[in-house]
Amino acid sequence: MNRENWNTRAERRSARLARAGEALPGQLDGKRVATAAAAALLSAVLEPGDRVCLEGNNQKQADFLARTLMQLDPQRVHGLHMVQSVLALPEHLDLFEAGIAKRLDFSFSGPQGTRLAQLVSSGRIEIGAIHTYLELFARYFVDLTPQVALVAAQAADADGNLYTGPNTEDTPAIVEATAFSGGIVIAQVNEMMEPGTLPRIDIPGGWVDFVVLAPKPNVIEPLFTRDPAQISEIQVLMAMMAIKGIYAEYGVQRLNHGIGFDTAAIELLLPTYGESLGLKGKICRHWALNPHPALIPAIEAGWVESIHSFGSELGMEDYIRARPDVFFTGRDGSLRSNRAFCQAAGHYACDLFIGSTLQIDLDGNSSTATQGRIAGFGGAPNMGADARGRRHASPAWLKAGREARDGRAGAAGTPRGQKLVVQMVETFREHMQPAFVETLDAWTLQKQAGMDLPPIMIYGEDVTHILTEEGIANLLLCRTDEEREQAIRGVAGYTAVGLARDRAMVEKLRERGVIRRPQDLGIDPRDATRNLLAARSMRELVRASGGLYQPPGRFRHW
Amino acid sequence: MNRENWNTRAERRSARLARAGEALPGQLDGKRVATAAAAALLSAVLEPGDRVCLEGNNQKQADFLARTLMQLDPQRVHGLHMVQSVLALPEHLDLFEAGIAKRLDFSFSGPQGTRLAQLVSSGRIEIGAIHTYLELFARYFVDLTPQVALVAAQAADADGNLYTGPNTEDTPAIVEATAFSGGIVIAQVNEMMEPGTLPRIDIPGGWVDFVVLAPKPNVIEPLFTRDPAQISEIQVLMAMMAIKGIYAEYGVQRLNHGIGFDTAAIELLLPTYGESLGLKGKICRHWALNPHPALIPAIEAGWVESIHSFGSELGMEDYIRARPDVFFTGRDGSLRSNRAFCQAAGHYACDLFIGSTLQIDLDGNSSTATQGRIAGFGGAPNMGADARGRRHASPAWLKAGREARDGRAGAAGTPRGQKLVVQMVETFREHMQPAFVETLDAWTLQKQAGMDLPPIMIYGEDVTHILTEEGIANLLLCRTDEEREQAIRGVAGYTAVGLARDRAMVEKLRERGVIRRPQDLGIDPRDATRNLLAARSMRELVRASGGLYQPPGRFRHW
Repeated sequence: MNRENWNTRAERRSARLARAGEALPGQLDGKRVATAAAAALLSAVLEPGDRVCLEGNNQKQADFLARTLMQLDPQRVHGLHMVQSVLALPEHLDLFEAGIAKRLDFSFSGPQGTRLAQLVSSGRIEIGAIHTYLELFARYFVDLTPQVALVAAQAADADGNLYTGPNTEDTPAIVEATAFSGGIVIAQVNEMMEPGTLPRIDIPGGWVDFVVLAPKPNVIEPLFTRDPAQISEIQVLMAMMAIKGIYAEYGVQRLNHGIGFDTAAIELLLPTYGESLGLKGKICRHWALNPHPALIPAIEAGWVESIHSFGSELGMEDYIRARPDVFFTGRDGSLRSNRAFCQAAGHYACDLFIGSTLQIDLDGNSSTATQGRIAGFGGAPNMGADARGRRHASPAWLKAGREARDGRAGAAGTPRGQKLVVQMVETFREHMQPAFVETLDAWTLQKQAGMDLPPIMIYGEDVTHILTEEGIANLLLCRTDEEREQAIRGVAGYTAVGLARDRAMVEKLRERGVIRRPQDLGIDPRDATRNLLAARSMRELVRASGGLYQPPGRFRHW
Repeated sequence: MNRENWNTRAERRSARLARAGEALPGQLDGKRVATAAAAALLSAVLEPGDRVCLEGNNQKQADFLARTLMQLDPQRVHGLHMVQSVLALPEHLDLFEAGIAKRLDFSFSGPQGTRLAQLVSSGRIEIGAIHTYLELFARYFVDLTPQVALVAAQAADADGNLYTGPNTEDTPAIVEATAFSGGIVIAQVNEMMEPGTLPRIDIPGGWVDFVVLAPKPNVIEPLFTRDPAQISEIQVLMAMMAIKGIYAEYGVQRLNHGIGFDTAAIELLLPTYGESLGLKGKICRHWALNPHPALIPAIEAGWVESIHSFGSELGMEDYIRARPDVFFTGRDGSLRSNRAFCQAAGHYACDLFIGSTLQIDLDGNSSTATQGRIAGFGGAPNMGADARGRRHASPAWLKAGREARDGRAGAAGTPRGQKLVVQMVETFREHMQPAFVETLDAWTLQKQAGMDLPPIMIYGEDVTHILTEEGIANLLLCRTDEEREQAIRGVAGYTAVGLARDRAMVEKLRERGVIRRPQDLGIDPRDATRNLLAARSMRELVRASGGLYQPPGRFRHW
């Protein structure tokens, strides 16, 4: 036997707990720690170099614990290795500037992307890797297991039982990995309740070591709310093409929508344009999706059978409570979200993912990475990849697979289904930046940040359709790199990439149905008006919900 | 609004609970139901056509509830749609013969595969689809959500809290999907305990409706135990090639092993042959793996840093309890397994999957499907597929990706990592059946069973290496279908497929390192003796564990 001691994790845990007990005389009530003692608790529990998961979700943030970490003495606590899915708050990066944290493994940094890139280039942060969410959770159980988890919940009792309410999100994955590997779990909560009175238990108390009442409720972002007033008629046109040219064509029943106005337009067209095509019950029945307010009219019109969610959405609480046939809810009536299971659902149980991007190259590779920012891609790589382990069939998946393999020999010709992965972009973005480029910024960023690979969000090999206002390019039907390139150029409009098309080849691709224009789909662009939207404003969304949807203040314009 | 009622699930749930209350006068104590009343409970709760998850795991079986289902009157309960990962017990199929169940979605049927095929061809079972585990769990949250879940746990209290002990397995995924969609959760348990005395809580009581004490402990199978005495010297040779020619070559740190003697041989060679190559600490540090007894010597020699498990293994309880630095364990000392998270780990956090198969064709497609049996593939498709959503790099993954893409243009040439997926087979199986075939039996089975696609376990496009006693074929380096075919023929030995090789081309592939023989790897087959095994018998495994491992009776030959 080479090892003398197989209990180092348990002993380290005991030592952490003992230090916490000493540091908090009289301030422990069961597992409850006084708010004022939070910094003393973290200082006692943490050790230099610890692997720490500070719950930064896509929406819910353990913001009080983040601020508390910032109060620690870097002489005592330093060099932490942060393993957290989202860097959303300034404090998440302050920790690195202060030297308290050193290394980072994450999924998405959103608004902190520019500052993150600066800290990397100045050597204040070592980035381990950027992950898609489920990939990061998977590593929690393999080689990135947290020694300390700092999570957020709605309420707790003195036994440590947690009620997460609608935003369960990453919490179960984080806590399970930490609690069953000798780690320490600390939760900030908005409310402390008496044992037996929690509306439901989302995390058993035995998995949690300390609970602290936060001085104010945790930060939470309404990331998935899009005001219908801002949807353009070009977006309506593109949404019509998506519904008629892709959803109806393949019979897509189970799907995930990315974030943004493009997909919000699709959601708002289902009960109008979709209804006029007779598609109700034939498409879009099951969703892996946050509770998008833009989906309310389709739900009310009876289009939607089920929605499982990664997280919740602010303002949707009462609406969800009133529609328990559609959403996954607890006995308390509020949503039970779960990012790990919803990502698994998006990967393995959906036939289509559709989302937007900033840049697409001539191979069909797409990325939202831009120079000077390190942002990550959240769930897109997981959902925007062909799930090659999938074995159950559906008409949509089989048709996509047939199109991809028809006429091919050898291993590439073996029959197999394929996931539909659609990139939906206008040819020019804001400030007239072209969405189609010869070379992705990702290549420059790779060099700048010393990455092993360029940060590509969705690979050309996995994209099946590119949809712009000019038409749909079906990459499944392309048989050579040249065909793919011309199919992409053929929908790239007046961008330099689009203008450089081989017109004869593009016309041939159109004859073969590889490229389809609105008129090829029987869509008259003049019909693409905002009148087709089932709700044209936040107010109409509220009305569609029967007054149950309560948008956050910033979305209330009436 | 098209719908008048959005609470049908909740109302149906209330009706089920009300019927249960009426059917069990005086037999309910909290959530506890008397054993004798189990049939009355199921009869009251179930409705014809219900979607039911009867927990059939890879190991743990809700066998008492399965037998209880069989006692129901098919006039009252019939046409159930079973959604369960494993069909292991005769009762699982008896239900279909009796007409109580009609439709089936599953992952693996193992010993019931022949009978399942007979029931399908006689029209007694409609198969929805065969899934890989994580895929089936994903559908629990999308379009196969159970209305009733019948699960198994070690112990419960009257509040419904469940202690699963080491075999948590599928239970959290099943219960979460059912409990948060208005379903009913019923658990059979081996032991009823007083509130507050459960060793730990694996499933909160609020998610569970009824608990029943089973008359005897649930069935559990030691599926992953392999007696080292049965490992052949050919398997030792192949294991040497795997370690030196693949694990060391790519620097594989994180991995999953399939079930069988081939991979058991690798596990038993790490502390001997692996040690002699100086590989300790350089390979095989992190595992997504059930607690294989064959890994004990490597663990004891300090090779293994962490193991996360799908389920547990009978006899390993005390050993796991004594090695908490390595395994994920609860405060009670026993394993916390979780098949959903471990499959995610196998998919996204491992660099290599290695397993065996029954047949491989000339495109590299492999399958364990044989005529007259419908068996499914369990976790193999999920772990034996390139995880195309993965974005974090490792040396092994980058090297495999470079080999696959070197010299390629277009989308196929965009740099990207790749998972190592190894199929390890002797060229002839038992009864001199060739492992290499021109055409997989899967194609016949597809026709027999009316499947949409042939049941291929691992696609040629995803396999990176084929390892036989003749050598290693590295399919990553093949550039044409013909090269792949000859690389496969080149390691297919004296099978008809192997004998039909193009000798000149095979030699060229060998010069390029596409095919590597033992001598190319510096391995002398005469060194491949059973003396290299760190344990040569069950007794030596027990000794290596310091007497902590307690093999089930059938493995005790001394």
